[in-house]
Amino acid sequence: MTTRGLSSGGLCLVLGGARSGKSAYAERRAAETGLDKVYVATSEAYDEEMRERIARHKAMRAEAGWHTIEEPLALAETMAVERGGDRVILVDCLTLWVTNLMMADRDVEAAASGLVEALSETTGQGPVILVSNEVGLGIVPDNAMARAFRDQAGRLHQQIASIAEEVVFVAAGLPLTLKG
Amino acid sequence: MTTRGLSSGGLCLVLGGARSGKSAYAERRAAETGLDKVYVATSEAYDEEMRERIARHKAMRAEAGWHTIEEPLALAETMAVERGGDRVILVDCLTLWVTNLMMADRDVEAAASGLVEALSETTGQGPVILVSNEVGLGIVPDNAMARAFRDQAGRLHQQIASIAEEVVFVAAGLPLTLKG
Amino acid sequence: MTTRGLSSGGLCLVLGGARSGKSAYAERRAAETGLDKVYVATSEAYDEEMRERIARHKAMRAEAGWHTIEEPLALAETMAVERGGDRVILVDCLTLWVTNLMMADRDVEAAASGLVEALSETTGQGPVILVSNEVGLGIVPDNAMARAFRDQAGRLHQQIASIAEEVVFVAAGLPLTLKG
Repeated sequence: MTTRGLSSGGLCLVLGGARSGKSAYAERRAAETGLDKVYVATSEAYDEEMRERIARHKAMRAEAGWHTIEEPLALAETMAVERGGDRVILVDCLTLWVTNLMMADRDVEAAASGLVEALSETTGQGPVILVSNEVGLGIVPDNAMARAFRDQAGRLHQQIASIAEEVVFVAAGLPLTLKG
Repeated sequence: MTTRGLSSGGLCLVLGGARSGKSAYAERRAAETGLDKVYVATSEAYDEEMRERIARHKAMRAEAGWHTIEEPLALAETMAVERGGDRVILVDCLTLWVTNLMMADRDVEAAASGLVEALSETTGQGPVILVSNEVGLGIVPDNAMARAFRDQAGRLHQQIASIAEEVVFVAAGLPLTLKG
Repeated sequence: MTTRGLSSGGLCLVLGGARSGKSAYAERRAAETGLDKVYVATSEAYDEEMRERIARHKAMRAEAGWHTIEEPLALAETMAVERGGDRVILVDCLTLWVTNLMMADRDVEAAASGLVEALSETTGQGPVILVSNEVGLGIVPDNAMARAFRDQAGRLHQQIASIAEEVVFVAAGLPLTLKG
C-alpha cells in the first residue's frame, strides 16, 4: 500500500460492497498521506437505523483527528472550496450522494458531470479519495427507482474512474487494484 | 489491451454488473480486431423502458459500422452460420438470452449446452466476444424464478469460461483479467 | 494453483457469488493437499428446493472420499475437535452458518468472534478451507433482516480474511487472488 497518485494530489476511487471494509481502507489511505484529514459525509438520516449508524461512525472518527463536513448534495462546490495541497479529502460515499440527489429530485446526470468537472479542474491541488458502493452485481431490481439508481451509480463510477489515477475494489477488507 | 486469443479466432467472455461499461469494453475489443463487426442483440422489448434502451443502443452503433442481427433465442445456430475468419461477432448479452429462454419456457440447460458445443465446434473460425451480466453477488432473491435465473446464468458463465481463451471482469469501465 | 498456506496447515477463505464455482474450486484445493478430507456442511433444509440441492451435493461427494459432518451452528467447537495435521477441513458455507445463527436467534457477532478465535488458536494444526457467499454487491435490500444478514456476512468475511493466509474470489469458476 503506497500513496502513489495520492502523494501528488491525485484522485482515488474506492469501490466495494456492503461491509466490504472499503471505508476503513479509504481512511487508512488518507492517514498515510500525513496531511490534515477532511471527511465529507454525504449521509442523511432517513430513519433511526441510519441515525445510529451515522453516530457510530462519527464517534469512531472523533478521536482520529478528522475534520468532518456534512454535505449531502453540493459535492462539486465542496471540492472547489476544500481541495488543497495541505489536506486530504475523503468523500464517503458517492452512492448515498446519488440517493440524496434522487430524493431531492435533482438532475443526477448534471450533478455527476458537475462533480467530474470540479475534480478535473482541481487535479493535483490535493489528494481526494472517493468511496462508493458497487451495487450492480445482483439480480435486476423489481422497482424502477432502484434500477434508475444503480444505472446512475454505475455511470458515475465509470466517469470518475476515467479521470482517477487509482481505482481500487475492496472485498473482505482486501484491496484489488483496477487502475493505478 | 491486446487482441490475444481474439486475433487467432478465439473466444472472449466479458462479465460485469449493470452499467459497468462491459458493453463499451467489448465493442472496443471488437473494433481492435480490424475485422467486419457483427452485433448479435439478444434483447427483446417487454416494455417501454426497454424499447427506449434498445433504440438508444442501436442509434449509438448505427454510425460505427456494425451489422446487427437480432436473435433472442437461437444463438447456437447463429454461431454456426455467422462465425467466420473475416468478421468478429459480439453477442450482447447472455443473461438476456437466458431470460428469453425462460420466458419462452425452453430447456435452458439444453440450450446452454448447445451454445457451448457450437462455440467449441467453431473454435478458431473467427473471434467471438460474449457479454454477460454477473448477477450472483447480491442477497438471495425472494422469488424462485429469480433464483433459478441466477443459477442458470452462473452455470452458463462457468461453462463458457472453461472453453474461453479470455475471461474479463469489468467494473467502473476497467477490465480485470480472470483468464487469458 | 499451488497449496501455499494450505500445505503448512493454513487457512484459506474462498468467496464467490451464487453458482460461481466456489465450492468446486474449494473441493479441488482440498483434494490437492492429498490429506483425508472432512466436509463440514452447514446447510439445513428449510424447504423441498434446499433438500434436493443438499442431496444432490452429497451424492456428488459420496464417491470422492469425503467424510461429511453436518454442523449448522457449532463451527468453533468443530474446529477445535476436528482440525489436525492428517486431514483437510472444508466448511461450506459461512453464509448459511450466519443464516442458521440468525434463525436460531443466536448472537452472531459473538459466534463470529468465537470462530475466529478457534481458527487462530488452531493455526498450523491442519489446512482449513472456508467457503462463503459474497452477498453485498447488489442493491440495498428492502427488509431489515436481509440488511442485517449482509452486514454480518461482510463483517465476518473481513475478520476471517484478516487471519487467513489466502483469500480467493471465484467468478465463472476462475480464482482471483485477493491475498496470499
